[in-house]
Amino acid sequence: MNIGIDMMGGDFAPLEAVKGIGLYLEQRKRAEDQREKDKEPGASDEGKVQLTLFGDEAQIKSLLEEHQINLQHIKIVPTSQVVDMHEHPTKALKEKQDSSIAVGFGYLAKGLTDAFISAGNTGAMMVGSLFSIKAIEGIQRPTIGAYMPRENGRLGWLLDAGINADCKPENLAQFAMLGTIFAEQVLNIPNPKVGLINIGEEEGKGNLLAQAAYPLLKETKGINFIGNIEGRDVFLDKADVMVCEGFTGNVILKLAESIHDLTQRRKINDEFFNMFEFEQYGGVPVLGVNKPVIIGHGISGAKAFMNMINITQKMIEKDVIGMIKARL
Amino acid sequence: MNIGIDMMGGDFAPLEAVKGIGLYLEQRKRAEDQREKDKEPGASDEGKVQLTLFGDEAQIKSLLEEHQINLQHIKIVPTSQVVDMHEHPTKALKEKQDSSIAVGFGYLAKGLTDAFISAGNTGAMMVGSLFSIKAIEGIQRPTIGAYMPRENGRLGWLLDAGINADCKPENLAQFAMLGTIFAEQVLNIPNPKVGLINIGEEEGKGNLLAQAAYPLLKETKGINFIGNIEGRDVFLDKADVMVCEGFTGNVILKLAESIHDLTQRRKINDEFFNMFEFEQYGGVPVLGVNKPVIIGHGISGAKAFMNMINITQKMIEKDVIGMIKARL
Repeated sequence: MNIGIDMMGGDFAPLEAVKGIGLYLEQRKRAEDQREKDKEPGASDEGKVQLTLFGDEAQIKSLLEEHQINLQHIKIVPTSQVVDMHEHPTKALKEKQDSSIAVGFGYLAKGLTDAFISAGNTGAMMVGSLFSIKAIEGIQRPTIGAYMPRENGRLGWLLDAGINADCKPENLAQFAMLGTIFAEQVLNIPNPKVGLINIGEEEGKGNLLAQAAYPLLKETKGINFIGNIEGRDVFLDKADVMVCEGFTGNVILKLAESIHDLTQRRKINDEFFNMFEFEQYGGVPVLGVNKPVIIGHGISGAKAFMNMINITQKMIEKDVIGMIKARL
Repeated sequence: MNIGIDMMGGDFAPLEAVKGIGLYLEQRKRAEDQREKDKEPGASDEGKVQLTLFGDEAQIKSLLEEHQINLQHIKIVPTSQVVDMHEHPTKALKEKQDSSIAVGFGYLAKGLTDAFISAGNTGAMMVGSLFSIKAIEGIQRPTIGAYMPRENGRLGWLLDAGINADCKPENLAQFAMLGTIFAEQVLNIPNPKVGLINIGEEEGKGNLLAQAAYPLLKETKGINFIGNIEGRDVFLDKADVMVCEGFTGNVILKLAESIHDLTQRRKINDEFFNMFEFEQYGGVPVLGVNKPVIIGHGISGAKAFMNMINITQKMIEKDVIGMIKARL
């Protein structure tokens, strides 16, 4: 398994990515030592995750050395350009062909890596996904979701979180399927409850899109559709997977993010409200494309990078992409 | 000035309405006493607010007596039926012609009262408004807004809050105008900043509706349009009037309401987060109809009823309806 990492994405690049890789390798070492102690059969060297790092070679090398990171399973692919956070995605990818994102997607498309992680320009990551590895056949609209803090202490999964501002009912049904597989396989929620975000409880309520999506969701096989949920249910455990178009989803996500800032400024320290610190969760996958692509928050720190590698590894191990294909 | 009140609406009818009237009259008495003390010219008896109460006469009379309420400016109009909270609005109004809501709208339409307040069935209040006193000529979609707690301690005004789930761009431009007048005249915010709820900051971002509404809002005269705002800006003081279609607005409102429940359950007592207790604000007006109509929360208590009478009085005194007509 070979995971590609864009070292130049995010506000603290490449330092936090390097530190995150350090945390990931330490965690892996601890797990191996434990297995050895318990005399369990360990994974062979072949099965180990290889990391391919894209970015400024000199900077990365010096940081890896500084942080005393074991280079055994690391390969650096030098790139000379960086796509900035606010650049136009399509234009930037076209013009900066030696950028860490462009080269990273090149490796992914050629099968030299199995997944790609970046905390860089979200738009460029979306465009890169759609043009290099492409949407899975039958998926109309790949989507990005968002973790949602819930009162029961377990994260929910909201999608779409802003990539698809206008949607058709069929898109929401596919989001439900994609979200179900992700919640089940990666978030470890068995038979996740799927709720349609709406403005009333009963079938027939809502705008035209929600009204049309409800019967489609009822018919969708392989999802545990529980009906409409409302704004007041988002932070409860009513539904594990919450579907809506990306306009409402993005408003909910950014509103939820602002709650963390507000509680911080008001000096509120509460287990539940601390869950609104979204940076801790690492990145979110682009669901519906042919290989695992994980996009991190621009302000991702070391822990977020470690979590992104863990999520990616899990997506590969569980063959999330294969499961999606099998459902189409 | 004669304000009609549905005494049978809300979860605690008619008790909380009676207590609210009591609070309102006490507050008025205190203001009068103060004026007398300061030797200011007081309002003559003619200028005083008369209250017309619709509902079960025996119950209301006994409660008024029990709470020692001065009956000088109160008139009871006995009604024998009640529209329940979950009844179908149009059907209920048609079948229950002697309900407090139906009779209340009858008085309003005939000019026997100048405004109508209810904490009852929201749908019936909307239908009653549209059929009895009707939308102001030129208003495509009357709307209901919602108060939004903001970090600066002053309420913002979000509209539409759920009545118009699907909207055209022109609807949002009218909401901006209606919201501006309400925020200026009733919430005392001079030259209120109007923001378009969207999923990005720049013009051109958003779903098709938001993209089309932006240039219209720029052109709308008499509003202080500041551009797009995002989910993270809702609880800040970025915009005073926040416009969107009623789907997103309703999700925001119910999500905000749930924050109060969550902080209560987590035993968080904070000045800002206490603002999320929506019942304290009394009701919201149906904006865009020919007379002031105020709809309260089902769980409205005495203070909410007092606030509803105050808001209604202010809307009449400031001639909010006349100002809206002048802008069309």
